Amino acid sequence: MNRDIKQIVKQLTLNEKATLCSGSSFWTTHAVERLDIPSIMLTDGPHGLRKQAGDADHLGLNASVPSTCFPSAVGLASSWNRDLVQLVGETIGKEALAEDVAILLGPGANIKRSPLCGRNFEYFSEDPYLTGELAASHISGVQSQGVGTSLKHYAVNNQEHCRMTTDAVVDERTLREIYLTGFEKAVKQAQPWTVMSSYNRVNGTYASENEYLLNTILKEEWGHEGFVVTDWSAVNEIAASIAAGLGLEMPSSNGEGPRKIVEAVNGGELSKEKLDQSVERLLAIIFKAAENKRPEATFDSEQHHQIAREAARETMVLLKNEDDILPLNKNSRIAVIGELAEKVRYQGGGSSHIHPTQLDSPYEQMVLLTEADASVTYAAGYKLASDESDPILMKQAVEAAKAAEVAVLFIGLPDRYESEGYDRSHMEIPVNQSELIKAVAAEQPNLVVVLSNGSPIVMPWLDDVKGVLEAYLGGQAAGGAMADLLYGETNPSGKLAETFPQSVHHNPSALFFPGDGDRVEYREGIYVGYRYYDRKDIEPLFPFGYGLSYTQFKYTDLSLSDTQFKDTDRVTVTVTIRNTGTRYGQEVVQLYVRDQQTVVSRPDKELKGFSKIGLEPGAEGSVSFTLDKRSFAYYNVDLKDWHVESGSYDILIGSSSRSILLQQTVNVESTTTVPVPTFDRNTTLGELLANPKTMAVMSQLQGLAPQGAEEAQSDAISSEMIQASMKYMPLRALIPFTGGALTEETLSQLLAGLNAAVRQ
Amino acid sequence: MNRDIKQIVKQLTLNEKATLCSGSSFWTTHAVERLDIPSIMLTDGPHGLRKQAGDADHLGLNASVPSTCFPSAVGLASSWNRDLVQLVGETIGKEALAEDVAILLGPGANIKRSPLCGRNFEYFSEDPYLTGELAASHISGVQSQGVGTSLKHYAVNNQEHCRMTTDAVVDERTLREIYLTGFEKAVKQAQPWTVMSSYNRVNGTYASENEYLLNTILKEEWGHEGFVVTDWSAVNEIAASIAAGLGLEMPSSNGEGPRKIVEAVNGGELSKEKLDQSVERLLAIIFKAAENKRPEATFDSEQHHQIAREAARETMVLLKNEDDILPLNKNSRIAVIGELAEKVRYQGGGSSHIHPTQLDSPYEQMVLLTEADASVTYAAGYKLASDESDPILMKQAVEAAKAAEVAVLFIGLPDRYESEGYDRSHMEIPVNQSELIKAVAAEQPNLVVVLSNGSPIVMPWLDDVKGVLEAYLGGQAAGGAMADLLYGETNPSGKLAETFPQSVHHNPSALFFPGDGDRVEYREGIYVGYRYYDRKDIEPLFPFGYGLSYTQFKYTDLSLSDTQFKDTDRVTVTVTIRNTGTRYGQEVVQLYVRDQQTVVSRPDKELKGFSKIGLEPGAEGSVSFTLDKRSFAYYNVDLKDWHVESGSYDILIGSSSRSILLQQTVNVESTTTVPVPTFDRNTTLGELLANPKTMAVMSQLQGLAPQGAEEAQSDAISSEMIQASMKYMPLRALIPFTGGALTEETLSQLLAGLNAAVRQ
Repeated sequence: MNRDIKQIVKQLTLNEKATLCSGSSFWTTHAVERLDIPSIMLTDGPHGLRKQAGDADHLGLNASVPSTCFPSAVGLASSWNRDLVQLVGETIGKEALAEDVAILLGPGANIKRSPLCGRNFEYFSEDPYLTGELAASHISGVQSQGVGTSLKHYAVNNQEHCRMTTDAVVDERTLREIYLTGFEKAVKQAQPWTVMSSYNRVNGTYASENEYLLNTILKEEWGHEGFVVTDWSAVNEIAASIAAGLGLEMPSSNGEGPRKIVEAVNGGELSKEKLDQSVERLLAIIFKAAENKRPEATFDSEQHHQIAREAARETMVLLKNEDDILPLNKNSRIAVIGELAEKVRYQGGGSSHIHPTQLDSPYEQMVLLTEADASVTYAAGYKLASDESDPILMKQAVEAAKAAEVAVLFIGLPDRYESEGYDRSHMEIPVNQSELIKAVAAEQPNLVVVLSNGSPIVMPWLDDVKGVLEAYLGGQAAGGAMADLLYGETNPSGKLAETFPQSVHHNPSALFFPGDGDRVEYREGIYVGYRYYDRKDIEPLFPFGYGLSYTQFKYTDLSLSDTQFKDTDRVTVTVTIRNTGTRYGQEVVQLYVRDQQTVVSRPDKELKGFSKIGLEPGAEGSVSFTLDKRSFAYYNVDLKDWHVESGSYDILIGSSSRSILLQQTVNVESTTTVPVPTFDRNTTLGELLANPKTMAVMSQLQGLAPQGAEEAQSDAISSEMIQASMKYMPLRALIPFTGGALTEETLSQLLAGLNAAVRQ
Repeated sequence: MNRDIKQIVKQLTLNEKATLCSGSSFWTTHAVERLDIPSIMLTDGPHGLRKQAGDADHLGLNASVPSTCFPSAVGLASSWNRDLVQLVGETIGKEALAEDVAILLGPGANIKRSPLCGRNFEYFSEDPYLTGELAASHISGVQSQGVGTSLKHYAVNNQEHCRMTTDAVVDERTLREIYLTGFEKAVKQAQPWTVMSSYNRVNGTYASENEYLLNTILKEEWGHEGFVVTDWSAVNEIAASIAAGLGLEMPSSNGEGPRKIVEAVNGGELSKEKLDQSVERLLAIIFKAAENKRPEATFDSEQHHQIAREAARETMVLLKNEDDILPLNKNSRIAVIGELAEKVRYQGGGSSHIHPTQLDSPYEQMVLLTEADASVTYAAGYKLASDESDPILMKQAVEAAKAAEVAVLFIGLPDRYESEGYDRSHMEIPVNQSELIKAVAAEQPNLVVVLSNGSPIVMPWLDDVKGVLEAYLGGQAAGGAMADLLYGETNPSGKLAETFPQSVHHNPSALFFPGDGDRVEYREGIYVGYRYYDRKDIEPLFPFGYGLSYTQFKYTDLSLSDTQFKDTDRVTVTVTIRNTGTRYGQEVVQLYVRDQQTVVSRPDKELKGFSKIGLEPGAEGSVSFTLDKRSFAYYNVDLKDWHVESGSYDILIGSSSRSILLQQTVNVESTTTVPVPTFDRNTTLGELLANPKTMAVMSQLQGLAPQGAEEAQSDAISSEMIQASMKYMPLRALIPFTGGALTEETLSQLLAGLNAAVRQ
């Protein structure tokens, strides 16, 4: 149906327009029946649908209808599989359609600045490229079903501490390269129907009233076509928000929001045009939702559970596998230990929390996979609800482990350790669990730990165990997937989308997280995640991109379509991968780019491509990547644009960020004309002598240069010092050293000459 | 003689005043003969006198008269001996007096932000307390002789890269706590006749024209009585400098400076009063210098050489002594290896470079100490002028080492590796020297390395050697002092005044040093030196405060005059030290303070006292420290003052920053009235519920609080999340959650009530 939205807006009264810009309940927008504007529902995601049953209460807390719980974003990211994430999105979209939900609140594209952020499980990665690619896949999946998404939390919302008021202070280059790139990719590649503004302030201004973020960048630069909705109760001053480009305040403010909008328009503080623009964007999506409504839609929850299991298998990361302790033998005597083996932790707490359609128990799923002569015992080992060791449970667990050939310990963070709403203060598991590991390890060397947690933990016990499977929060089929991987039904193929540090204090933001008072400074700048560990020469526990398989892969034949090109060209990189082991497996091949020599400080390497390939034993295949300007660019704050320095770059192909297996150097030429500088009295000799255009003028200065400086090398002053002093010397500082030859007057003349020279 | 300086200034013409504010040559001020204003000489230090012979040339480069070269500041600081540093100052003062030098350009009180700064050898420490104490001692020593000093380089001059133009961007708290504290202590404790403004900009404004630094802080807050002189050629715009509080431009600007001052006064850009103030301060010191002139003064260079040797012994730090390889036996066969054993590196390059009165050779001094039956051979091993290994020299060295009982390798940084004027780009020694260590170690396990360098190096070869003596740049008697320590004539007592990191990338400023372009951001903030390594949980190669002895000390009986006191009280801390070994030795006892619980981010510990005690074997003695407000305070940017939070603090007594041997907790009560806050719509519930004065008003809000939130705990939302959400909730965000009970209007009333409550 082709509606003339401008025409509809003209027919709306000021009051109606103001009302449309604020929720009508906790989850719905206002309808305007006389103009056939329907109410639509927005409800939580992103790894499944959290639609409240019955009428919404004013806190959004009552029980929700069952839906399929997929792995959390942290796990989805570990799959490094765009198609899989898209499939998960499609499947959630189908459920939303069946539940008459117009917009799913997700995915989250915030960067894991600190491993302590309580909401990290809902975010993809510490890397903006990976984040952006997967957020785009997720959005494309959901929206392919005619259901909208809300890309959140825009922007620079990287902690829960004081999340509703804190001011995230971040420099422009870091903002662009680290914190916005994921959003930018998702918006440009997948056009989410809505973007959700975050609670916090960004460089002094609330995100929900930040004109630079909502209008300049999101709409003007990136071309976002939908509207911006606030995070729930994120509005500070609604009129300022509408003026900045906000579309919708959520939830209902009981009429206060609309009243203030009307007041602001009547008082002249908010222009009618700004309000109309917001309402136009809002209506376009509301009508789009209305058109995509499918009252007859249903979904097959059993089939969706299977998809959840398939997804979960790829989201788990095999971190350690000494002596090939995994996969387990289906005939072995296995001691399954840990309450988490029965009560699986499969999702995080907060707004993303799902009422699952069914729930796999890891222990039961393991039993189902074993053969008749196997023995699989269970012992709780610890109480998840407590941090204190229970001597009886521990003793039973140790006995069970001793009686078995292999002990599999299910370990993890309880709900209270990580959740939306607050950050962790440390990276430890509960002490009763670490004590249990030590106790079991003392009696049973064949020990495998399966981890359920939404963000990295430290592992002082790592040397005591032979195997570690990081299962993250794997959704309702996590138990089945764990069993599949432990028994080798499926070969692990996940790789870490985040660094596991050896110590919480090693993390990039450790000195400045979560900030003093209501202000958090992002002082580590662009050095987030592996960018930091690389540059600081700090060995992580497990690096970004790392993950083991039950098979092995060989990387060969790196080839490029060109090795000398302009920054506007596109280049294809191809690599051959061979499965040299004995099982089918999938490998995540990673492409990083390094700028060999830079004017500005840049990371040692940055992810610019990845590809997942499945290979039968002995088979080989090729993966390819396309690089473009952005693959080589940094954000140049003077140019206010992405910029590629002319020069040499290394193309690095690796199985992780710390395992680079192939590399080749290319030469990229910039096509950007950099503005001509204006020289002044503080311009240095070094700068002038390095510029071919000013060299000629500088030769006139020969007579003025510190006389005899070059020959003056003495015991005191080395030639290196003379050279450096000259290089760093501003023109005005030459005056005292020229014995009267250079004066303020001749300096002015010289500057005029220099400035003319570069403008010729 | 009591001169009426204001009267003299009145008699000066504008031109004379302007001329007085600018040097007359490279090293001297202008005289005004008609008013008996003499010219005085300022010349380089600080670890000896660099007075040029004959007339000054315009670059200050010609040869200088002989003077005693004392250990560089890096070594003096390692002595942790205030009396020793004072004695060195006195001795240099005597030489200055004899050479008719009015003002010695030093000491340097800049903080070692990065181990790479080329001029680190001229600075004391990474710690501001230690820096300030020793700078004050140095100044007191020199000035006790009637010779002035120039405390330099004020301020935030922590690199040589782009030193004349770079903008050091540092937050106020870091500026005060780290970069100014050393200057502040030195000014308040020792009143240097002059302070030298640095080349660089600080937060956008050149130090030499920085009103905040030169006037507000230095003169008004700290009460500096002397004048400020620029670093040589540091003036950007002279009129702006005079207006900001500068006294003297150096060196001569060939009349350009005075001309511009006259112009500025005539043009009204510079007030006559400002100029008069500068001239008054200048004349006060010039006359003081004139009064202290001692044309008959001489000095005993032999005696001063002995003082230099005594000093040097305390400046060297024994870093490793496996199997008690040191001290050497005076009868042993020793292979002395390394060109540095003959050509000792004893001082750094640049303005501080001295023409020594005599120079000890380490090798010769070692031979002098041995007994008749000893054999001490010498092999060059490498060429200091080259980085390339010389196979013949290396072979000879290895042969010599094999033939000996112990090999002593003299290793270090050549002049070209570190100097004023440029920074290091790495922390390696030349590769020919590290190859030599490996080669010798392969044949001779009894291997001792003696290091000559002005700043930390990395030591990938550390496990290959049994002993390491860090001799730093020990002055002209370094060779004798090395011999004394190696043979046990003296027991090493130096401790590191800086951290030696395991990797250059571990250093606190690694990500941001030396900055991009003409700007360097001090993003690590207060986390400099051990404050950083402590907090980041990064193990240093050798920690701050570390150093071995040939004897052992036991620490007991920590006692405090009070454990519960006000921040205005003074407290005495006493510790008993016992020499439990078999030799006389000196121990540096260190006192650190830790704030147990802080509102702002604070270091794990900070040095607040140190004391050096000498003890015969078996003897014990006590050392005591006085703590005052500053010992517990941080700089509160809101209060614009030093502030002590009420609460518990740990008093830590250690033999190094990482070896805390005794500790006790005290309780300090603040006497500061903190301003009453003004609450607004973004004030959080947490803030209000924590304030006893607002609690009562908040109870009125009971009915408005999210209804049922406490009971709403569900699967999705844990009680922890509800609690955190409430705590971080700003008042205005309650509006949507109160079902209409809280409105903008009632919120305004509530705020009025809250603000009234805290003002009652």
